[in-house]
Amino acid sequence: MDRRAFARRLSSAARWFVFALSAGVVGLSGAQERGTGDLGVVIERASGSVLIVAHTTPEVLARVEGLGDLSHASVVFSRDQRFAYIFGRDGALTKIDLLRPGIVARVQQAGNSIGGAISQDGRLVVAQNYEPGGIVAFDADDLHRVAEVPAKAGPDGKASKVVGLADLPGQRFAYALFDAGEICVSDFSVPDTPRTECASAGRQPYDGLVTPDGRFYLAGLFGEDGVALWDSWHPEAGVRRILDGYGRGEALLPVYKMPHLRGWAQAGERLFLPAIGRHEVLVVDRRDWRELGRVAVAGQPVFVMARPDGREIWVNFAFPDNGRVQVIDAETLTVRDTLVPGQAVLHMEFTPKGDQVWVSCRDDDRVVVYDALTHQERNRFAARSPSGIFFTHRATRFGM
Amino acid sequence: MDRRAFARRLSSAARWFVFALSAGVVGLSGAQERGTGDLGVVIERASGSVLIVAHTTPEVLARVEGLGDLSHASVVFSRDQRFAYIFGRDGALTKIDLLRPGIVARVQQAGNSIGGAISQDGRLVVAQNYEPGGIVAFDADDLHRVAEVPAKAGPDGKASKVVGLADLPGQRFAYALFDAGEICVSDFSVPDTPRTECASAGRQPYDGLVTPDGRFYLAGLFGEDGVALWDSWHPEAGVRRILDGYGRGEALLPVYKMPHLRGWAQAGERLFLPAIGRHEVLVVDRRDWRELGRVAVAGQPVFVMARPDGREIWVNFAFPDNGRVQVIDAETLTVRDTLVPGQAVLHMEFTPKGDQVWVSCRDDDRVVVYDALTHQERNRFAARSPSGIFFTHRATRFGM
Repeated sequence: MDRRAFARRLSSAARWFVFALSAGVVGLSGAQERGTGDLGVVIERASGSVLIVAHTTPEVLARVEGLGDLSHASVVFSRDQRFAYIFGRDGALTKIDLLRPGIVARVQQAGNSIGGAISQDGRLVVAQNYEPGGIVAFDADDLHRVAEVPAKAGPDGKASKVVGLADLPGQRFAYALFDAGEICVSDFSVPDTPRTECASAGRQPYDGLVTPDGRFYLAGLFGEDGVALWDSWHPEAGVRRILDGYGRGEALLPVYKMPHLRGWAQAGERLFLPAIGRHEVLVVDRRDWRELGRVAVAGQPVFVMARPDGREIWVNFAFPDNGRVQVIDAETLTVRDTLVPGQAVLHMEFTPKGDQVWVSCRDDDRVVVYDALTHQERNRFAARSPSGIFFTHRATRFGM
Repeated sequence: MDRRAFARRLSSAARWFVFALSAGVVGLSGAQERGTGDLGVVIERASGSVLIVAHTTPEVLARVEGLGDLSHASVVFSRDQRFAYIFGRDGALTKIDLLRPGIVARVQQAGNSIGGAISQDGRLVVAQNYEPGGIVAFDADDLHRVAEVPAKAGPDGKASKVVGLADLPGQRFAYALFDAGEICVSDFSVPDTPRTECASAGRQPYDGLVTPDGRFYLAGLFGEDGVALWDSWHPEAGVRRILDGYGRGEALLPVYKMPHLRGWAQAGERLFLPAIGRHEVLVVDRRDWRELGRVAVAGQPVFVMARPDGREIWVNFAFPDNGRVQVIDAETLTVRDTLVPGQAVLHMEFTPKGDQVWVSCRDDDRVVVYDALTHQERNRFAARSPSGIFFTHRATRFGM
């Protein structure tokens, strides 16, 4: 390590601190000798806690408490699928152990954060921040701060809010700057000396995602009609505009909840995505990025998720239609089924090979597990205001 | 369970036996408290043993011995990624524990076998057999025999050899009958009462695979020019013939080693597959199944594998060119690099997000680990005549 890098690391270390490991744990104690490929985490958004679950049985294994504000929390997993990294809305990043349920490390890394990602090799965990705007990379082992990339200022002179952070092959991360209207890629091949390049993307990108192969990065635009597309195989080509008419400008209904681009689904050669402010799911041809059609659904879609075999698309909705889940046939583009899991359905997660789908019902304090093939309920269990559900196989995929 | 099912289970139980757990274990002993998402198994084909490895470090954790004839062995993993099921050429099926290295259960299930698969829900392990021809389903927990499906007889009056077994969504398995020339699908939704349907596929299907979404099943034909394609979304459409000219009949060179269809790669909208008996990799348009082009390579390709980001295709070769590995650029369709890992390269396995690729060099008794992005060697370790390498993330994918 050269002197500059050493100084940087020393400075990072000085700012780094780990919270006391005093958080409450209910359930298992001591070492768990078990595989971790079927584990997961359910966010309990109101109580700052998470449930550790297993989907083979399925069952709840333990609860870990003391995680702060989880009102917009997201989770990534370590390469060995033993640890979960939880990004809280309050800017805290917490590493928990799924085998010995409890907090391993915790760092208050920013004032306001909306998620993060983990590098291709699993060594860096990166948080995307609103306040102060930028991204910060942490060592996945002990959460010491490795590097940070401040975001370019927006029109108000403040560092832009960062949205849509996603890992790409080669220790790179793509993200969008809401205020500055750019798509950026930071390369952490030399972890403490990231190199960043940005390109103009359009007005107010509000979320982003990467295709499952890690190649294309897409950012939805809130300030314009359309989506910004960036091809990581051809960065020299810059950002391209697709799907004009998708965006906010054409909205006929008030937008109750910003759709999640992470809730886009790729099934075969088709992309399925929520139409902003409309009771529709858009279908896009993955080959030329053109709209193929729209499917009328029961409300404003939030998450639009493909069953892993691509045969069905499951959709949940914004208030006031958030008590339902609809299932779209990916071939005929018709609604095949409507389910009523409970009040305030916030998230859904498929098991890796798609035999089950877990649905969180915040206002009924329960998670419902469906047989994803028959659509029959097969289990339900109590959870406190559950929101996001995350299974460990995400560690093996780009953009998750 | 009804009386018939009960009698069947009793009969299965009577035929089931577990070998003594006396096999040798070198390395770790006792419980391992660790995640299992970065583990794997390396087959040591000549000594009837396997290495348990971890790819984060990377490192060898233990050796498990006493597994019989592993000269054409393959491996699938339990849903929780703790256990590996090893199918030996001698018809033995062995379940080993990756955390407490050793044999958990072992059954001599047939006289001659060439592999197997695991069901979508992880509860059934199915072996495909040459002698006697057919498939046999075992309980994934204790390997008791649950059901079997004898294969239709071929022209010689004997039950057909089964090849190309692959798991499909919905507890189904697709496979091909070499002698009878059919593609079959067995549905184990009621585990001890499978329902099977078959369709004529062409002369001598020799291997098969399912696309990553579990939708299309393809079987290569040895007795005719071409590939048989079956669409699980439209079984009523029967089997379709594609890629005439791909097959055996047009071969200009002696076929030294039958290519593995499992070695086909899908990258974006392109399929890459070994041209039988030629020094070429075929490129096929996944949209219409037509040939897009051919890439000249250094020998007769055996495994043609896509790096998980789809940017590169790695190829190994049959004797006498089996000391090399070539890397094809998936976009320009040119050979980008030629590596010389060692003598008799038998297999390659990418880590789930593709930062590393592990290469087995049988005649040098070593495994070489490359940085899959830079193509630089990063590790090597000793192994006894290594062949297949299998990482646990296969548990989360169809057809692996």
